[in-house]
Amino acid sequence: MKITLSILAFLAMITISSQAVTVEQYAVFELTMKGPSTGNPFQDVQLSAEFSFRNRTLFCTGFYDGEGVYKLRFMPDAVGEWRYTTHSNFPELDGKAGRFTCWEASDGNHGTVKVRNTYDFGYADGTPFYPVGTTCYAWVHQPDELVQQTLASLAATKFNKIRMTVMPKNYDVYINNEPPFYPFEGSKETGWDFSRPNPAFFRNFENKIIDLQKLGIEADVILFHPYDWGKWNLDKMNTDQSVFYLRYLMARIAAYRNVWWSMANEYDIMRKTDEEWETYFLVIQTYDPYAHLCSIHNGMAWYNHSKPWISHLSIQTAYLQDIQDWRELYKKPVIIDECVYEGNIPNDWGNLTPEEMVNRFWISWCRGAYCTHGETYLHSENVLWWSKGGRLYGKSPERIAFLHQIMTETPTEGVYPHHSIWNKETYLIKDNEFYLHYYGNSQQAKARLQLPEKVKFTLEVIDAWNMTITPVPGEFSGLTEIPLPGRPYMAVRARSITK
Amino acid sequence: MKITLSILAFLAMITISSQAVTVEQYAVFELTMKGPSTGNPFQDVQLSAEFSFRNRTLFCTGFYDGEGVYKLRFMPDAVGEWRYTTHSNFPELDGKAGRFTCWEASDGNHGTVKVRNTYDFGYADGTPFYPVGTTCYAWVHQPDELVQQTLASLAATKFNKIRMTVMPKNYDVYINNEPPFYPFEGSKETGWDFSRPNPAFFRNFENKIIDLQKLGIEADVILFHPYDWGKWNLDKMNTDQSVFYLRYLMARIAAYRNVWWSMANEYDIMRKTDEEWETYFLVIQTYDPYAHLCSIHNGMAWYNHSKPWISHLSIQTAYLQDIQDWRELYKKPVIIDECVYEGNIPNDWGNLTPEEMVNRFWISWCRGAYCTHGETYLHSENVLWWSKGGRLYGKSPERIAFLHQIMTETPTEGVYPHHSIWNKETYLIKDNEFYLHYYGNSQQAKARLQLPEKVKFTLEVIDAWNMTITPVPGEFSGLTEIPLPGRPYMAVRARSITK
Repeated sequence: MKITLSILAFLAMITISSQAVTVEQYAVFELTMKGPSTGNPFQDVQLSAEFSFRNRTLFCTGFYDGEGVYKLRFMPDAVGEWRYTTHSNFPELDGKAGRFTCWEASDGNHGTVKVRNTYDFGYADGTPFYPVGTTCYAWVHQPDELVQQTLASLAATKFNKIRMTVMPKNYDVYINNEPPFYPFEGSKETGWDFSRPNPAFFRNFENKIIDLQKLGIEADVILFHPYDWGKWNLDKMNTDQSVFYLRYLMARIAAYRNVWWSMANEYDIMRKTDEEWETYFLVIQTYDPYAHLCSIHNGMAWYNHSKPWISHLSIQTAYLQDIQDWRELYKKPVIIDECVYEGNIPNDWGNLTPEEMVNRFWISWCRGAYCTHGETYLHSENVLWWSKGGRLYGKSPERIAFLHQIMTETPTEGVYPHHSIWNKETYLIKDNEFYLHYYGNSQQAKARLQLPEKVKFTLEVIDAWNMTITPVPGEFSGLTEIPLPGRPYMAVRARSITK
Repeated sequence: MKITLSILAFLAMITISSQAVTVEQYAVFELTMKGPSTGNPFQDVQLSAEFSFRNRTLFCTGFYDGEGVYKLRFMPDAVGEWRYTTHSNFPELDGKAGRFTCWEASDGNHGTVKVRNTYDFGYADGTPFYPVGTTCYAWVHQPDELVQQTLASLAATKFNKIRMTVMPKNYDVYINNEPPFYPFEGSKETGWDFSRPNPAFFRNFENKIIDLQKLGIEADVILFHPYDWGKWNLDKMNTDQSVFYLRYLMARIAAYRNVWWSMANEYDIMRKTDEEWETYFLVIQTYDPYAHLCSIHNGMAWYNHSKPWISHLSIQTAYLQDIQDWRELYKKPVIIDECVYEGNIPNDWGNLTPEEMVNRFWISWCRGAYCTHGETYLHSENVLWWSKGGRLYGKSPERIAFLHQIMTETPTEGVYPHHSIWNKETYLIKDNEFYLHYYGNSQQAKARLQLPEKVKFTLEVIDAWNMTITPVPGEFSGLTEIPLPGRPYMAVRARSITK
């Protein structure tokens, strides 16, 4: 009560602008202002705002966009009237106040993705979100023609999350091209001025996030990664410079509803201290008003996923049998964000058959986790999807889309993973209602299900590779045996018959 | 010196028989005697002998074979003159002495298999033994026609070890037939007299061991197993009865050079105490003069393989990535004696594709272990190789034979396993001399090898599935890339060119 009163007193003191703006829920309200352009406006000028809705106030930072232009971006999450007022150490940017009306999200705009029911994901509006992600680390750093091809390729899939790095990437023969923009003033030869971001670089990056948003794809934004290897030395920021970079990036992109934070790719290869990583996570906690999903991806060693700033596990592993233990241990969703990619390169991490890529998606899902795709087929011009985007050549994306359809047909509550004693078969179960048995690369010619005695079920045989769902005639209860085609990648789905 | 003198003194006291017998090295010298047939000769009559060669004396027990006949079986391991004398609590069996000449093993007789170089196996004569085993648990308990078919099937493979149970087996619909012989007097209805073995049963069993020996196959004899489930209650012996059974069996079969002891199949499912198992291992240690290989096979829980009576690990697992850790921990050979079988039954443990069965053999081998085959294809009369033998229908045996050939072409010393950082590629290496890279179910279109700079190598591409070895033209050193066909189950072998 005391707090509410003081907020009201505070609001009464500020000048309310007369503009009548409207913004869609979970869309971006952007405030543009003119301000100083001399000195180092990126660091000399502090700009923030409070956005208030009823008894809530959210703190939001602005950024310098070059040429004397300052911006504040804010994503309202509630329908109704919002008020704001700015704060700055420069009078011309300080105390600017206003209001806008937030109207209900339009069709297809479900808001930010959050953790749902401990182990799963859902949009802010309650719609379940089943991540089927892909990986194109440096697609935004490619020529525009390739970028457009990547977007067209994505549009033809059901991928709804993409792992992508803020910084350009240098790795082996596969990727070492110069990006169209550099993130800071300076050059690799003369050194970078890490205190002066290049607005064009970040504008390019955020436009890609918007492009993805239009496709319904979450941007799993990788803030740091180890694959510079002295080519640009963009991985050589010290802690203060890194904090500044993070704050600048967040001021620009946190307001986009489809942003996820991936603190680092293969964080352990970067050899930063735990203290450093903690500093960066605290920056996110402080400057992201929306609490976007936040993870950190391992190379060999794992970060302590129990930390409160970790919303979900973003795991690299070739072994999926421990997923259920990880769920139990951390009580958080698990995404197998790298389990080796579909492709045929000699590198150990890039030569899964499409069958095995799809198999790993199914196993992950039936163990209560989610999996992420990547593609690394040898290419005459080294345009591999995994790093540059472009075209998809593999056979797994359409099968992953098929799995996504199966996911959406699963009960949204009360489902848990299970596995056979020898850890080979995996199941998703909602007691008395839903049983999905997945048989992996086994070739059994019969399925044996122990269904409840007192409930009647319909059965379907699902071919995860050939993407067929074949109903089995009849109704079934108790111990049930049905024929299977005797080839790998089969599943059986039992659904209770509603009385 | 003192000991030698007392042995000489002892030898002088006994009556030396005038027979002049000869026996092949590692073959069986059998002494047959008449003795009491009343009472319970199995338990009332003690019979043993000392067999002496130069300064060594081996203790060996005899057994009652029914109808007043007593036998002593002994396998001489050294060429030259052996002497023996019997001991018994019945005068007519006591103090019988004799000698025989052991002549050198004939071609194809390499003696018993022992541990070689910590992690591998070799025959007594030094010939390396590369186990490629199969599993026919209850083949000896089938009708003779089926037994003969099993032997013919084995003869057409390169399998050189077979897991087989002494006792008949009862498991699900797949095997529950009555055996041609029962191991004890009595019946399942009236109960068994565990103090009175049925010689016909054991004669049948040992004849099968001899049949296997003729095929060059080691008999991995499973002494106990949990799959009786009240059908015969042959698993209901108490500790004393079990000790008696073991002593009787060992007196009969220990002298066969191709015997291995497998204390139990899935020992943990039998719920005996560690103390009981230890009692049984001590029986083996005491009454097996030859120190045959000895292991114990797990269900879910592992026995303490550090114990000195465990010669090698006999593991059931579906996961092979920890093999190298087990080697390091126990410093013993590792055999993956069950890793799921090739087949198509609904049971989780019996539906590997042949490709995956072969893959697991290769992975095991390249990780420094050995693997064991089994086959479980649905059969109209439930004759599944895994339990009854009969015919082999699968595609893995000939590929396993191909791998066995590759094994024999590997350096016999100094080879160690290695794996890639993501644990996907596996290698066998002898530094500067031999490199075998196995790529599993990956589909890379190129192989990348880091060969030593100063040694020249020939390269061959091995297709583990299609069983081809294709030389790559040229000589290679240092970082080497060669094309691969881009399909699973490929290996590359590099062998140094001898100067």
